[in-house]
Amino acid sequence: MGTLVACWFAVVILVIVGLYGGVDGAYVKYNTCAGVVEGKLNVHLVPHSHDDVGWLKTIDQYYVGSNNSIQGACVENVLDSVIEALARDPNRKFVFAEMAFFQRWWLEQSPEMQELVRKLVNAGQLEFINGGWCMHDEATTHYIDMIDQTTLGFNKVPRVGWQIDPFGHSAVQAYLLGAEVGFNSLHFARIDYQDRAKRKDDKSLEVIWRGSKTFGSSSQIFTNVFPDHYGPPEGFSFEVFDDFEPVQDNTLLDDYNVEIRVTDFISAAMTQAIVTRTNHIMWTMGEDFTYQYAESWFKQLDKFIHYVNKDGRVNALYSTPSIYVDAKNAENVSWPLKTDDYLPYADREDAYWTGFFTSRPALKRYVRMLSGYYLAARQLEFLVGRRSSGPSTYGLGDALGIAQHHDALTGTAKQHTTNDYEKRLAIGASEAEAVVDNALSCLVSKKPGGQCSSPALNFTQCQLLNISFCPATEEDILDGESLVVLAYNSLGWNRTDIIRIPVTDSNFVVRDSSGYTVEAQFVDLDNVTINLRNFYVKAYLGLLPKQVPKYWLLFQVSLPPLGWNTYFISKAAKEGFVSTLGNPQNDTIEVGPGDLKMLFSSTSGQLVRIYNSKMGVDVPVQQSYLYYASSVGDVDNPQASGAYIFRPDELRPTIVSRKVPMKVVRGPLVDEVHQQFSSWIYRVARLHKDKEHADVEFTIGPIPTDDGVGKEVITQMTANMATEKTFYTDSNGRDFIKRVRDYRPDWSLTVTEPVAGNYYPINLGIFTMDNKTEFSVLVDRAAGGASIKDGQIELMLHRRILADDSRGVGEPLDEIVCIANNSTCEGLTVRGHYYIGINKPGTGARWRRTTGQEVYSPLVLAFAHEKMEDWTASHVTIGTTMDSSYSLPQNVALITLQELDDGSALLRLAHLYEPGEDAEYSTLTKVQLKKMFAGRTIKEVKEMSLSANQEKSEMKRMTWKVEGEVVAEPTPLRGGPVAMSDLVVELGPMEIRTFLLKF
Amino acid sequence: MGTLVACWFAVVILVIVGLYGGVDGAYVKYNTCAGVVEGKLNVHLVPHSHDDVGWLKTIDQYYVGSNNSIQGACVENVLDSVIEALARDPNRKFVFAEMAFFQRWWLEQSPEMQELVRKLVNAGQLEFINGGWCMHDEATTHYIDMIDQTTLGFNKVPRVGWQIDPFGHSAVQAYLLGAEVGFNSLHFARIDYQDRAKRKDDKSLEVIWRGSKTFGSSSQIFTNVFPDHYGPPEGFSFEVFDDFEPVQDNTLLDDYNVEIRVTDFISAAMTQAIVTRTNHIMWTMGEDFTYQYAESWFKQLDKFIHYVNKDGRVNALYSTPSIYVDAKNAENVSWPLKTDDYLPYADREDAYWTGFFTSRPALKRYVRMLSGYYLAARQLEFLVGRRSSGPSTYGLGDALGIAQHHDALTGTAKQHTTNDYEKRLAIGASEAEAVVDNALSCLVSKKPGGQCSSPALNFTQCQLLNISFCPATEEDILDGESLVVLAYNSLGWNRTDIIRIPVTDSNFVVRDSSGYTVEAQFVDLDNVTINLRNFYVKAYLGLLPKQVPKYWLLFQVSLPPLGWNTYFISKAAKEGFVSTLGNPQNDTIEVGPGDLKMLFSSTSGQLVRIYNSKMGVDVPVQQSYLYYASSVGDVDNPQASGAYIFRPDELRPTIVSRKVPMKVVRGPLVDEVHQQFSSWIYRVARLHKDKEHADVEFTIGPIPTDDGVGKEVITQMTANMATEKTFYTDSNGRDFIKRVRDYRPDWSLTVTEPVAGNYYPINLGIFTMDNKTEFSVLVDRAAGGASIKDGQIELMLHRRILADDSRGVGEPLDEIVCIANNSTCEGLTVRGHYYIGINKPGTGARWRRTTGQEVYSPLVLAFAHEKMEDWTASHVTIGTTMDSSYSLPQNVALITLQELDDGSALLRLAHLYEPGEDAEYSTLTKVQLKKMFAGRTIKEVKEMSLSANQEKSEMKRMTWKVEGEVVAEPTPLRGGPVAMSDLVVELGPMEIRTFLLKF
Repeated sequence: MGTLVACWFAVVILVIVGLYGGVDGAYVKYNTCAGVVEGKLNVHLVPHSHDDVGWLKTIDQYYVGSNNSIQGACVENVLDSVIEALARDPNRKFVFAEMAFFQRWWLEQSPEMQELVRKLVNAGQLEFINGGWCMHDEATTHYIDMIDQTTLGFNKVPRVGWQIDPFGHSAVQAYLLGAEVGFNSLHFARIDYQDRAKRKDDKSLEVIWRGSKTFGSSSQIFTNVFPDHYGPPEGFSFEVFDDFEPVQDNTLLDDYNVEIRVTDFISAAMTQAIVTRTNHIMWTMGEDFTYQYAESWFKQLDKFIHYVNKDGRVNALYSTPSIYVDAKNAENVSWPLKTDDYLPYADREDAYWTGFFTSRPALKRYVRMLSGYYLAARQLEFLVGRRSSGPSTYGLGDALGIAQHHDALTGTAKQHTTNDYEKRLAIGASEAEAVVDNALSCLVSKKPGGQCSSPALNFTQCQLLNISFCPATEEDILDGESLVVLAYNSLGWNRTDIIRIPVTDSNFVVRDSSGYTVEAQFVDLDNVTINLRNFYVKAYLGLLPKQVPKYWLLFQVSLPPLGWNTYFISKAAKEGFVSTLGNPQNDTIEVGPGDLKMLFSSTSGQLVRIYNSKMGVDVPVQQSYLYYASSVGDVDNPQASGAYIFRPDELRPTIVSRKVPMKVVRGPLVDEVHQQFSSWIYRVARLHKDKEHADVEFTIGPIPTDDGVGKEVITQMTANMATEKTFYTDSNGRDFIKRVRDYRPDWSLTVTEPVAGNYYPINLGIFTMDNKTEFSVLVDRAAGGASIKDGQIELMLHRRILADDSRGVGEPLDEIVCIANNSTCEGLTVRGHYYIGINKPGTGARWRRTTGQEVYSPLVLAFAHEKMEDWTASHVTIGTTMDSSYSLPQNVALITLQELDDGSALLRLAHLYEPGEDAEYSTLTKVQLKKMFAGRTIKEVKEMSLSANQEKSEMKRMTWKVEGEVVAEPTPLRGGPVAMSDLVVELGPMEIRTFLLKF
Repeated sequence: MGTLVACWFAVVILVIVGLYGGVDGAYVKYNTCAGVVEGKLNVHLVPHSHDDVGWLKTIDQYYVGSNNSIQGACVENVLDSVIEALARDPNRKFVFAEMAFFQRWWLEQSPEMQELVRKLVNAGQLEFINGGWCMHDEATTHYIDMIDQTTLGFNKVPRVGWQIDPFGHSAVQAYLLGAEVGFNSLHFARIDYQDRAKRKDDKSLEVIWRGSKTFGSSSQIFTNVFPDHYGPPEGFSFEVFDDFEPVQDNTLLDDYNVEIRVTDFISAAMTQAIVTRTNHIMWTMGEDFTYQYAESWFKQLDKFIHYVNKDGRVNALYSTPSIYVDAKNAENVSWPLKTDDYLPYADREDAYWTGFFTSRPALKRYVRMLSGYYLAARQLEFLVGRRSSGPSTYGLGDALGIAQHHDALTGTAKQHTTNDYEKRLAIGASEAEAVVDNALSCLVSKKPGGQCSSPALNFTQCQLLNISFCPATEEDILDGESLVVLAYNSLGWNRTDIIRIPVTDSNFVVRDSSGYTVEAQFVDLDNVTINLRNFYVKAYLGLLPKQVPKYWLLFQVSLPPLGWNTYFISKAAKEGFVSTLGNPQNDTIEVGPGDLKMLFSSTSGQLVRIYNSKMGVDVPVQQSYLYYASSVGDVDNPQASGAYIFRPDELRPTIVSRKVPMKVVRGPLVDEVHQQFSSWIYRVARLHKDKEHADVEFTIGPIPTDDGVGKEVITQMTANMATEKTFYTDSNGRDFIKRVRDYRPDWSLTVTEPVAGNYYPINLGIFTMDNKTEFSVLVDRAAGGASIKDGQIELMLHRRILADDSRGVGEPLDEIVCIANNSTCEGLTVRGHYYIGINKPGTGARWRRTTGQEVYSPLVLAFAHEKMEDWTASHVTIGTTMDSSYSLPQNVALITLQELDDGSALLRLAHLYEPGEDAEYSTLTKVQLKKMFAGRTIKEVKEMSLSANQEKSEMKRMTWKVEGEVVAEPTPLRGGPVAMSDLVVELGPMEIRTFLLKF
């Protein structure tokens, strides 16, 4: 009704002006109030600004508009000027997506301005879309991070998924971060160029996307793929300083061009109408960081709407994606069906954006590590109660939210921006560390509530454990005192694990809280780790540690669900068990203290076989490290490999070494095979007691580039299996999707890049199978993976490239680390893990899902030095925060537990299995909230949308017809409502349920 | 009071915010209400945008923001966004100068917006400064054009002269277009770099400028020369997209920098304070076309004012030049005195901006020609009464106003922009031609008022007479019919002249309106003229004339003041007087039908002497055509010669020819010496009956550049005179200023360019003298001139240059003319005149002033074909619009007579002589309005400021103290008030008086 009134008013004014009429060059009141007109082609003009949350500049530089020599962009200007422009005409509209920017702006505004913005939002002039902190990447992000960053957004309910720029689109985005968040539609620009061509041909750019095999139509979403990119048709970009032809309707001035421009408009509309179903097309009226001076756009749009509608051949209107999709929905026609995902993405021949799956592996790991830490920290914050002042987890949440941006985690930002992401993460992590210290102190204190209000006990944690730097464990343990190791388990299950800390001596004994000695093993620190430690501690902390630890001390621990346990390390009279060095006896060396064994050739050092006699699986497997030389373009195509794009110079990668000496370390808890593949590739394969997989640690770097050649380092694990081109990769660490080499389900693929075009993003893992074996590899961070040959799994682990791939970042992906004021610099070394599992067909999921959770949520370790008896006297040494008899079902993960500002708790529970994945676990399961929150009384349980911004019951879903679909799909299994009486949450396979609890 | 209230309110808000206080990153209400603070250094922040009325783009392109690939500039954005920004905070201020833009914008605004603008203007937030149509050039403009374009401006009274960009500054600007317009101050950036250095040293950038020798302190003006340029100090430019460091006061974001930026501000202020007197400095906060999004500036300025004043070391305030000058005036200190002018301008070594004095001589002539025509057309429009519809002189006034811009007439705009200026002039001229046709028809009609209302008689005029194209005179004159030649004299004196028209035959007779035969002479059309005519008529009009005229027909005419006469040309039985060809008899050839004679060497063809036996002056004079090769930069300095800058490659110009064949044409009305100096230089020297000077017509071009060398063509007239480095050039065609070679009165000149640095702009003429002779040359357009050797006068006539001189235009000054869709192109040929006079010392002024008026205001000619008896029956063939017995005194020119919208008349009368210039004429003189406006009753006479926007009696003048001045100057001679009883206007020497008359 508001619109109608405004329109009527405008018409009256037009008539009045008409009466005094048509004075040359005089004031023209433009009629901008058009709505949808039946029977005409409706051109929905959607004003927007695509504001990267960091890319060529840092987020704050983009916000305040500094560093403009790199890119003229100031988001403050965008928001300032858009609000002004909207206030000027009630028919104007604008959509905004990046809440990390909006929040910065909002806080700075006056109450009057905030009130104006609220009015514009309520009037539908300003619409928030997507609504997350950023427009996250979809290939290298973990679904828990995606949920978290989306939840961080503005407390308004967006109806539209607006992922216009990410480099390919995931199934999880469509069904989980789309439909389950409550979006009616999803919009984006980037799909494979071959796919796009076909979709333009058969008018299937707009589809109903069912991204989930499990939920099918119940979490489908209307998806609008733009015909070209997310900008306006050529000639219709109106940024201040842009070279465009303004609509010039002043007859007193030169170059009057109304008719010409109207014709241009109609012609551009017709071009799009040809590839679009129904009488509605959408024009995305905006580009990167446009609307610096919004009036420059709106002035032109006003004129176009006025004159185009006066012409009458088509109807132009201010619109939003919501209005557009409402109009599409009202047409009640059938739409093509789309399943799986839109990955990988190529924007032209030889230009597969599969490099960024791996680019900046250290950043990718840092984000993943902090993601798990953030989850645990929020749990602890909740468990002891949030503090109104002092450190909080907010900073880490903010930094992680920003880091999910499609130029952050992806590794496609400039180096200085990447540094800024990392700095934000480090600051957030350090604040969260204080939260964890405080919370743990409080949690384990025997004084009821006592420790919670006083300053934190002097716990320390060690973020650089991976390179053996941990002052707390290296410190002298005084006679009579102990190094207290407090471990916290953020999983809802009992857990047995092995802790590994650097120590300076081997005459230590480890005791549990009851005083029993715990089995321990000392492993010599290798030189590669020592060198890494020396260089990176200096580079990152600016200090040279006094002394270098000599050993890794390993000991096995056992923890209750959502609970902790305490271990005490003290000086022993005699040396502990120092690992023995194995010597090859035969042709092969077998390692593994448990059921899983690996066999290596003692002559070549190569892996030969993996087998698990208990499980009855036995696979011949070879493993190599290799690299692709990065293409710098060739005669056929100047496309270089770079931060975004993976383009190998030749199809066959170069093997780093065919014969590798090995050092075998053996002991009761771990067998390790150390191998130096080259001066810059070091690998340790570890087989732990009670673990059914090999834990492979790689240390890669500095990748040499003295030969002027960029290199993309991979590992290939080649099993003797008949996998028939087929393999499986996860979608954002959640669903597994079937991949077939050199094939796309949606179109007939022309293969131009037999390697790069077969890469897929891996966040949880990749597996392949034949009728005897499932062969799985899990990752500790996002990485690109493929199966270029049957039986083979390939992971890209590190990249160092000397050329730029011409997609905007304008820097080669050549990561350098420096010490001593840049006097000594070298290429970045990356250390990480992947995990190899072999299973009988049908049993791999259980290993993948469980191990995946353990990798994502490692134990949180905190250290102190105190006398054991003093400690045990004043602390609870072992405990769970749940009912002591309770643990979550093995197929459920607690993915969010967080205290909100109002004291209520945000709870998310995720079923970890897809239907059919596991005979036992792929079933409806139940969580007993009463037992989970033992000691608290739950007063209220509200089920919410995934992003928790509306009640589940209030979510409205559009209905859509799908081409060729006659029979409705069976309803998927989902849990029923939660009764206050028993407070049991049911979860069907793959189900994630979100609740707000009041206690 | 308004400001005080606003300030108080702001303080209250600040206190309130303070109470809720200092929330990190929250809304800050900036305190922007600072006024001047005593005892502190006050930094006056003056927001402005320098908007060229055409330069790299045309004026309309600049206005609407098209053609942005050349330059991102849209003045519509500037005005839109500035108004928004001013409305947002009542303390913000902005000054705007270019009314040609403001008028375009104003007409397009809604009544509400116009009301808002009125409020902002009344509140002093938006201040119009300069107030002319454009910021005119000061070197190549004629004072009448300067007055006209300033009068065109907005009907508000500006107090400030704002000539920030013109390339040097004239005396006439300071006293006439400054003080006499009512300005209190004049501000600009460009003065000689050596001058600037000295003025910075002795704090004399700000001066009291007395530009007029005649009026001295009574038309002095406070003049503020900026220490660097018209932009802000480095680092304080805040245009959207600019790379600046924003004030970042949000502590939640990175890069908080308030203290750093405040220190930057204070440090920049101190740097300026060192070179400035008093505690007030002004920062010009704007650049070319800045404030595309004004908020980007004001946001930063708000913050600076807030934080700098919080810091308290200096005081920053929103200001305007008026406020600044008020503050300066209030200090009541003494200022250095400046006389004469700031010409020529060099911005660094070897970079004298003296090329533009001549650049684009064809444009310069077109403007000057139309300037005189516009004056006459407005007279005629007034005389017959303005029409409410139909053609008017407004278009020509607008086009001429725009053409005065400092990148228009100067020849420093891009070619396409120059084409636009010329197109506007042509359209305006063609409309004015219709006005003149109508008015003349009406004026000469015997039917009282009859002809005025009916359609115009079919008069035609000929704008291309200079190249012998005039269809009306070339047309067959039928037996019994006449070619009617109506001549109008816009001067206030009786006038005798020679009319010169192309005809196809020589058997014509000329009769006056009484039927008496008038003396006539036929002169063969030379080939150079015929070729010019063929090429340019095709180029300009796209047509090839059917036949080529064979002769120039010359006949002598006599006209009453502000009146007309009619001549009839009809077929005669026999041929008229066809000029004879003179043959050299002796060594020398003497030419000249009257008192003035020129002697040429019959062997070399060179001019040898000029003498006037009646006057008793006799001077040996040589004349040559030469050219300077344009520098393209050299090892010492890469500075090239270009549109702005004149830098000869060598100091001695190349002589075009030392021996020139000559053709001498003789007759009763004219003797002509035709000489082809080279294939591209043709000269005709003409000595007319009853004229005391030589009229030299030059035809130069296409200047050859096949040798890859740009050329700047000059003529040198070298008289045997002892002139002691001294010569005189006019200031905008008004006052003559003494020039001394290699010398500046204001500083000790370091000569780096002995030629270019001695060039001065000539608009009326240049002369030099010794104790025997005054040797004068008058010009028909602006040109550069010099006296590089004693006794020598040098004029630069044409330039064709192949390099750009790096001052922004980005094009070489290489003018090309094409025909037949650009299939045939050649360098521009320029034809023009200069006039050589020799006089006894003390008598030259009379010739210069009178001839100058005749050159500026040639007869307006209109042609018709009719039977003579029919014509005389229905038309008044001769008449004056004044009392038939009256003419203006010989020392007075009518420089404006124009009917305004309200029917009143704008009248400007100018005394033509400086004190002491002429024994008889340099005296108080009187104009009798009653006789001047015979047949009308003057009901009201209001004396106005020069630009007619306020009554003279209301003009307020500031008083200033001048250093070292003890005794007040004698009061200059000015006319007294006009009594309604006798309506006599008195004019003292050089006085210009402006009146509004009501009849």
